[in-house]
Parts: sequence; structure tokens; C-alpha cells
Amino acid sequence: MQPDPSPASGTRDFLPAEVIARERAFRIIRDVFERHGFAPIDTPALERIDVLLGKYGQEGDQLIFKILRRGEHEESGETDLALRYDLTVPLARYVAAHPELGTPFKRYHIGNVWRADRPGHGRYREFTQCDVDVVGSASPLADAETMLTLDAALSALGLEGYTFEVNSRRALHALVEAYGIAPELESSALVALDKLDKVGPAGVAEELRTRGVAADAVDRVEADLETDDARAPARDLLGSTERGTAGLAEVDELLGLVDGRLQAGRVRFAPYLARGLDYYTGPIFEIRHEGLGSSIGSGGRYDGLLGMFSGREIPATGGSLGVERILLLLDSQATGTDGAPEVVVTVLDDDLRGEAVTLATRLRSAGITADLFSDSARMRKQLRYADRRGARYAVMRGADEVAAGIVTVKHLESGEQVPVPEDDLVRYLQRQSASDRGEE
Amino acid sequence: MQPDPSPASGTRDFLPAEVIARERAFRIIRDVFERHGFAPIDTPALERIDVLLGKYGQEGDQLIFKILRRGEHEESGETDLALRYDLTVPLARYVAAHPELGTPFKRYHIGNVWRADRPGHGRYREFTQCDVDVVGSASPLADAETMLTLDAALSALGLEGYTFEVNSRRALHALVEAYGIAPELESSALVALDKLDKVGPAGVAEELRTRGVAADAVDRVEADLETDDARAPARDLLGSTERGTAGLAEVDELLGLVDGRLQAGRVRFAPYLARGLDYYTGPIFEIRHEGLGSSIGSGGRYDGLLGMFSGREIPATGGSLGVERILLLLDSQATGTDGAPEVVVTVLDDDLRGEAVTLATRLRSAGITADLFSDSARMRKQLRYADRRGARYAVMRGADEVAAGIVTVKHLESGEQVPVPEDDLVRYLQRQSASDRGEE
Repeated sequence: MQPDPSPASGTRDFLPAEVIARERAFRIIRDVFERHGFAPIDTPALERIDVLLGKYGQEGDQLIFKILRRGEHEESGETDLALRYDLTVPLARYVAAHPELGTPFKRYHIGNVWRADRPGHGRYREFTQCDVDVVGSASPLADAETMLTLDAALSALGLEGYTFEVNSRRALHALVEAYGIAPELESSALVALDKLDKVGPAGVAEELRTRGVAADAVDRVEADLETDDARAPARDLLGSTERGTAGLAEVDELLGLVDGRLQAGRVRFAPYLARGLDYYTGPIFEIRHEGLGSSIGSGGRYDGLLGMFSGREIPATGGSLGVERILLLLDSQATGTDGAPEVVVTVLDDDLRGEAVTLATRLRSAGITADLFSDSARMRKQLRYADRRGARYAVMRGADEVAAGIVTVKHLESGEQVPVPEDDLVRYLQRQSASDRGEE
Repeated sequence: MQPDPSPASGTRDFLPAEVIARERAFRIIRDVFERHGFAPIDTPALERIDVLLGKYGQEGDQLIFKILRRGEHEESGETDLALRYDLTVPLARYVAAHPELGTPFKRYHIGNVWRADRPGHGRYREFTQCDVDVVGSASPLADAETMLTLDAALSALGLEGYTFEVNSRRALHALVEAYGIAPELESSALVALDKLDKVGPAGVAEELRTRGVAADAVDRVEADLETDDARAPARDLLGSTERGTAGLAEVDELLGLVDGRLQAGRVRFAPYLARGLDYYTGPIFEIRHEGLGSSIGSGGRYDGLLGMFSGREIPATGGSLGVERILLLLDSQATGTDGAPEVVVTVLDDDLRGEAVTLATRLRSAGITADLFSDSARMRKQLRYADRRGARYAVMRGADEVAAGIVTVKHLESGEQVPVPEDDLVRYLQRQSASDRGEE
């Protein structure tokens, strides 16, 4: 029996066209992030296990891949290392390890993370995260920079039809309070509110009731959610308390910095946006794409988290792109090359191998992507290979052609064969490619 | 007590300038590989443990990072997954999982691998490998393509002064035999010969003696190694037997395909080159840089290995660049940018934040790398930040300047401040940058 060649459950092999599409997207994202003054960092996939444990709650801890100690300890079942679960806890460690970087420190990080989630439904155990963060600034400018940078990246990737939904944790607390929801039920109520997009106003109301929120508070929430634009009653309610007014001012300051300066996205106040993670302390946002139920990015301010390894509070704000989802969206819009070579140089007979290598070298030196058929095979098989690779031209050269100083260029789409003087080959192919591209 | 913020032993944090240098090198390498017709693939870092175990010998198995099973199995100390140890066994699995790719299949793969080696002396437990392989071709053309592609990548990276040392496993077996070394001592003798560069002819002779090789055979080896050019006596000896002649022909055919077609490297026959790995079956090579004791790349033909998941023999040849070492070499030659922004946009007062964002957005849209000081601070601190980031210009804009429609550009090196009309700012900076670069 052959061993199973499939990748481990929840992981993926990437085919050449997929790698090329991913790399192209990452190049675009990197270039945009750097143009916005963010500097790239990298951290190891392996972290000491104590760096990661206890940072993601009990549920998170169970999803961390833990690595067995080596050598004599192996039998003990002890673990000492683990795979990083996100890029944020490593950032907190990194900032403490590199105080020379100073603040504000604007960094981006594109890298894989690992989570022992149950695989399925497009969920992977190994996937790429793509984060920008401004470390050491409490200013709303830093929040705005994060959003503008993510927007510029999405726009450069060619995405449209997405909206930044903005809220503030402060406004949200004030809103929950103003509805008369008991303080001890606040966290629970936020979980219910976070489902608004999925279950609608009635669904939220039902969940609030189940979670023990008083009936009159639930009725008020439901009535507001059912208005044409829930932002109006929420604004009114927030304006009626001091905490609410302060929270609203935070939202409006950020909206004022971002609105009108986005490349392709829109921005709007989303008073019921909660974001799951406990660690947010200020403005929060989610990027929703009209073509998708779920978000393609998110972020917010988390002033309490980054100082965990530094022994002092470090204000920070950031966001991340849901690159795996974005790549799927781009894939459905994809056109263009998949890494096909321009030319396949064929080899008519073993004595002419050297001639074939010389030809291929000459094309490559001129910047032309040239594959060389690296085996001994009949011409028919070589041409099938050129077709399979998606090449435009096959170049053929027998002994007679070598003697005459020419090369035969076969246009693979039309089947036409053209003799070209050896010294004109590069120019001929460049001219042909340019005109082929012009016609497309 | 603060928790330890350093990365796990044997792993590294990368600073921004390091990430930028690495990414730049990887882009160059990718572009060259693709121009040579190699297609990129990627495989997961996590593999099922049975995919990896038993492929690298007992010593290798002990260096594999094994991952504890999750959930109820956690207590048992059982492992089910592991981190990939190289990119070759994953390639064997990949080829079996994707028969639709056909052959010859020319792939490259740049990715991290993990080995539980004792860290130190520039050895890491997490490092990047960079492989090209031609799968499914037994032709020397495939060996030549591998070498020419690696050479073109090294040349594109700006390296010089390196040599491809070429041998063939067949020639090496014949040579050992011709010296009269007993067949059962062949593997042991190869280990000794592999140390020639480090210990010299006398050292090799001593080690051969220790390993039980007969005295007259050792004397013959030592005498040949001590000639001015050991290639001459080795050629003579190989020419004296049928196996030797066949091995030599294999070497000469490859040398003939490669010689004179390298961009920046040289190539020469190295009759005593052994290469450690057992799995090589044909031509083998190592790339030696004059500035380093160790190699910066290597490879060879390994026809028996790739079929392990496919149930049939698949001829294959390939090579890899020692990217970590190459990056160190490049680093010592490095010049140029480290990701410094061209401009830092400063913020004179909180009411002018929106103006600052507008300015930064305008510069970025024009392709200028513009950082925005994303905090509230006095101008002196903002200019210190601009210096630290290595920016050329700081852009300043107070209320008077907004009213007058101008912007002040501070040249950070000279300290000169120039008022520039708002609408001319992009052109002014582009012109300045071009002339600054021209002067360098």
C-alpha cells in the first residue's frame, strides 16, 4: 500500500498558479504598507510555550499546537515550544525585546499562524495573517493611519465595494448602559449584539432575553435596531449621557480624519459593532465586503495588551486584512498569467542539447521567461509539454537550422512556424509578444 | 518579574532592515527561477508525522519537532503532526498528490524548515531553504538546468567569485574501487574524502587509515591528493576502468553543457567531492565561495527518492541555495535603503491632523513613501523620529501655511527649510530626490 500523499487535515498544498497569485498580492500589500511608513518585522513560528499560554483565554490555549521536548525528555510528554497563534502576542514580545526601535513604532507583519481549530468550511489550521500596528501612540491619527493604510492596500489589490464600519468600545459601553442593561450582563449582551448581521433585530432581541436582559431594555434595543437607520436613535441615546457623548466624540473624530480620504472604501458609524475580542479599549472597526457575509479585515485600539512583556502600559492600535478571504475574492476576479513561460526551447536530438542551452540562456538574459524541455523525448511530447505550461512559442532547432544560422519559432496557438535568423530571435519574440499583448 | 522577551533558543527576530534585505533577495531569486521556467509550489509547515519519520535516518528523526495531539489525547504524550525538516520529502509527497502536473515538472520552493539541532555558531532551528528541482527527467540537461538556474540567481544577487565543483557518484564509486579500497569500506572512505577541504591530504590519509583502509591504498590516495592538480591523476585512474570511464563521461557531459554558459560562476571537476547525503545517484555539485569556508549551494541527482509516495521510481535532480549564508555575504556587501521613508509628515497641532493626513495621502498616491507622525508630540520629538527613521525630508504645515497654501520642507541632512506651494509639493520632492540620488 502506498502511504497517503495528501497534506495533513486543515493544511493545504499550493499549486504554482496559486503561489504566484498569493505572492503577487503580498508584493502589492508590502509595497503599499511601506509607502505608508510601516516597517516590516518577522518573528519565529516557534515561541517558548510560556510566551503564548494564558494570552488567548482557556479556549485559545486549547487551540495552540504544542511541541514535545526532544531527547531524554521526549518520553515525559512535556512540551517546551509552541507554534504562534497570532502575530499580536509575538509583537508584544518583540517590542519588549527591541526597545531601541523607539516609539511611535509602525510595523507590519505578514506571516503564517497555526490554530488547532476543527478544519472545514474554508477554515485552515495553518493560514496567513497580515497585520499593521502603530505601537506607542494614543492619538486618533494612529487609528486613522491604520484604516487608511488597509484601504490603500485593498484598493491597490483591485477590490471595491467595501465599507469600514467604525465604533468605539467607549461608545458601546455607554450605549449598553443607556439601554438600562445591567453592568454584569454587559459582556453577554455584546455577544448578542455582535450577531446582528447574522440573525437580525428579532434574533438579537431573543438572544438578549435568553441571556437575562430585562424585557424593557430588550424592547428599546429591538425598536432602535428596527428603524431604517439605527444610527440616528443610537446617536440620540449616546448624546443623552456624559460617557456616551465622550464615546461619540471619539468615533466622530476618527470618522472626520478618515472620511473623504479613502481610496476605494466607504466609512460609516456602526453603533452596535462589538468585535469579539476582549482586549479592545477604544475605536474598533470591521471592513465588510458587499459580496461576502463575513468581514475582509478588522482592527481597533488595544492599549492594555502590548505592555505585557515590557512592564508598562503601551498604547497601540492596529488592524489586519483577512488575506485568505481576500485572495479568494481576487481569485474569482482573476485574469492574467499563472506563471506560464513565454517560450519553451525544445531539443531535437541529444547532440543538440548544448545548442538548446545556449538559446535558452540568451533568451533569459534578455529577460524573456524561457523554459527548456529538460528531458529526451519526441517533439510531439515536447510540444504537449509547451501547451500544458501555457507557453506562447516553442523554439526548435535541428542540425540544418544550426548550419543555416536560423531558429524555427512555432506559434502554439495558430500552429504557424516561422524561420527566424538566430541573431534576430530576441527582437522577434519581444516584438511578437508586444503585439500579441496589444491585441488582447 | 517581567517575562523573558527574547525569542526561543535557536530562533530569531528580524529587524525591519533585515526583513527588507531578505525580501529583496527572495524577489530576485523568484524572478530568476521563473525566468528559467521553474514554477513555485508551497506545502504546509505541518506534515503528518508518518510522512516525515524514517526518511532522514535515525539521527534525522531525532531532530524533527513533533507536535502533541490535542484535546483528550494531550495527556497521553502522543504526537500526530511534525514540522517539515526539509523541502524534499514534502516534494515527494506533493508529486504523488498532484499527478495532474505531469513530467518533467520543474518546481522551485522557498520556505522555512525546522530542525531541533543544538543552536549556535550561526546554526538555527528555524531557517529558510530555497530549492529548485526537475522531477521526472533522467537527462543531463536537467542537471545542467539546475546549475545554470542557481548560477543566474547568484549572479542576479550580485555575487561573484564562486565555483561549481562537479563530480558524479558513479565516478566516485569507480575511483574508490580503483584505489583498491575494499567495497565494505567505501561509505566510510567517502566520509574521510569529504573532509579534504578542511583537513588536507595528510588529514584525509590519517582518517582513511583510522577507518581501516589498507596502507597501500591510502598511500596512493595521498600521493594523488598532493599533486598540483589532483584532477589529472584521478582522470587517469578513472580512465583505466570501465566503470570509471562511464563515470567520467557523465561528468564531462554535464561540464560540457554548463561550461561557458554560467553568468558569474566558474565550473570545475572535483573528483574527490562526495557530498554527505546517501540518496544521490548521479552527478553531484557544490558551490564554493572564495570568501567562505563552507558552500553556498549544492545539489545533485537522486533518482531513488522522489517515488517514495508514488509507488514507482521517479528520476529527479535538483539543487538548493544556502540562502542564510548568502544573505550574510550580501549583508557584508550591502548598500542602499533599509526601508527608510522618503518623507515624514509632521503634525504641528491637533487641529491640523486632518491637513496632515491629506498631505500624506497626496504624497503616497504619487508613489512617494511618506510616513505620518502618528502621535501628539512637540516638533523636536517629531524631527528626532524622522531622523531615526532615516527620512530625507520632514514636511511641516502650521495654520499660517495652510492659509497661505504653502508647505515647509525641511531637508533633514542640511537643516535647510524651503517653503513650497502646496500644489508643487509632489513635483518638488520628486525633483529633489532625483537630484540627491544623482549626486550620490
